[in-house]
Amino acid sequence: MAGKVFFAVTMSLDGFIAPVPDVTVGEVFAPGGQDDPRVQRWMRKWSELQSWVFPQRFFRENLKLGEGGAEGLDNDLSKATFERTGVSVMGKRMFDGGERAWPEEAPFHTPVFVVTHTERDPWERPGGTTFHFVNDGIESALLQARDAAGDRDVRIAGGADLIQQYLNSGLVDEFSISLAPVLLGAGIRLFDQIDADRIALTQVRSDATEVTHLTYTATKR
Amino acid sequence: MAGKVFFAVTMSLDGFIAPVPDVTVGEVFAPGGQDDPRVQRWMRKWSELQSWVFPQRFFRENLKLGEGGAEGLDNDLSKATFERTGVSVMGKRMFDGGERAWPEEAPFHTPVFVVTHTERDPWERPGGTTFHFVNDGIESALLQARDAAGDRDVRIAGGADLIQQYLNSGLVDEFSISLAPVLLGAGIRLFDQIDADRIALTQVRSDATEVTHLTYTATKR
Repeated sequence: MAGKVFFAVTMSLDGFIAPVPDVTVGEVFAPGGQDDPRVQRWMRKWSELQSWVFPQRFFRENLKLGEGGAEGLDNDLSKATFERTGVSVMGKRMFDGGERAWPEEAPFHTPVFVVTHTERDPWERPGGTTFHFVNDGIESALLQARDAAGDRDVRIAGGADLIQQYLNSGLVDEFSISLAPVLLGAGIRLFDQIDADRIALTQVRSDATEVTHLTYTATKR
Repeated sequence: MAGKVFFAVTMSLDGFIAPVPDVTVGEVFAPGGQDDPRVQRWMRKWSELQSWVFPQRFFRENLKLGEGGAEGLDNDLSKATFERTGVSVMGKRMFDGGERAWPEEAPFHTPVFVVTHTERDPWERPGGTTFHFVNDGIESALLQARDAAGDRDVRIAGGADLIQQYLNSGLVDEFSISLAPVLLGAGIRLFDQIDADRIALTQVRSDATEVTHLTYTATKR
């Protein structure tokens, strides 16, 4: 049985999955980056958006931030998202930022396919994460990802632009949004450049903590 | 005890409370309006967005669309929103559209304050709705609304622009969003031109049917 293709993101109530559109994660983690007021704003807003996830036990363990942490639905869902993921697919910009931000033991522990124009040999990290660089587009990346994932699921990790490309191509089976009670006012929208007329959604889960975790199936129409 | 100031809207997952930004409700209900393909698109998208509410017993009764209808949480919440509302406040464009769209017995059954530059005598409708036209701004309209509402709540009925003005002024105590599993791709955003840095939200309710009904309190920061 083939796995599903999904994405899972935290979104602000006004529709953003990243604050401050002109700041990249790469900049945030560049040497001296955090002296820049734009970056400081990004950090502050990012922390607000993601505040539900930082205290979770699974999140802390996976990033080796320390022992312990919160347990409950937020933790269970974070862990379940990780465990269902056989392979992640990400865009170039997300990878570039992550390359600076992730610890040496990158937090995926699976193959990751990076959609990019840059040619590069596979990059193996301790802990089971290997980055593969795909130069022939999103469909090829997904084929390779599905093949590597076996019967587990493929997560479109982001960014927003890559998620939109997969959604518009009808290749996403379902997705989860953790809707945070936060207004960002600006940033990168999850649903931008969406071919809305061709995507039908059904809400299949909705569970509340301090945020609301929503899951939808997507079908072409 | 003074009532609360709130709004309650249906929003698409991509953040819109009305489809097709350049079509007004006034146009939709103008003679011959529905021959216009833009208006036809508006009608189709509006129906998708609001599809959870049309079958509800309370909605049908209040608009005198016929006997019977769905019961359950969607109906209970629609009815509760109506019953808590002692007065509505609305913008000029919403009123202009409604003046064409509402039945003779307008569906408010309370005083309604319309924020407008147009001077006009109060307009009394059968069934208890009286429209008052306020020419000196949103704060004056709210003072008059509070006074008329007594210990019931004041609903900022819309449109988005008026809701944003009240939110940015720190005058909204709480709000409810019925988040529909619909992507519109374009339209009028609920949270546009929001002074996001000055508004702190707390999620206080989240209940799911085929949509998710979210309630937040808003405070200045």
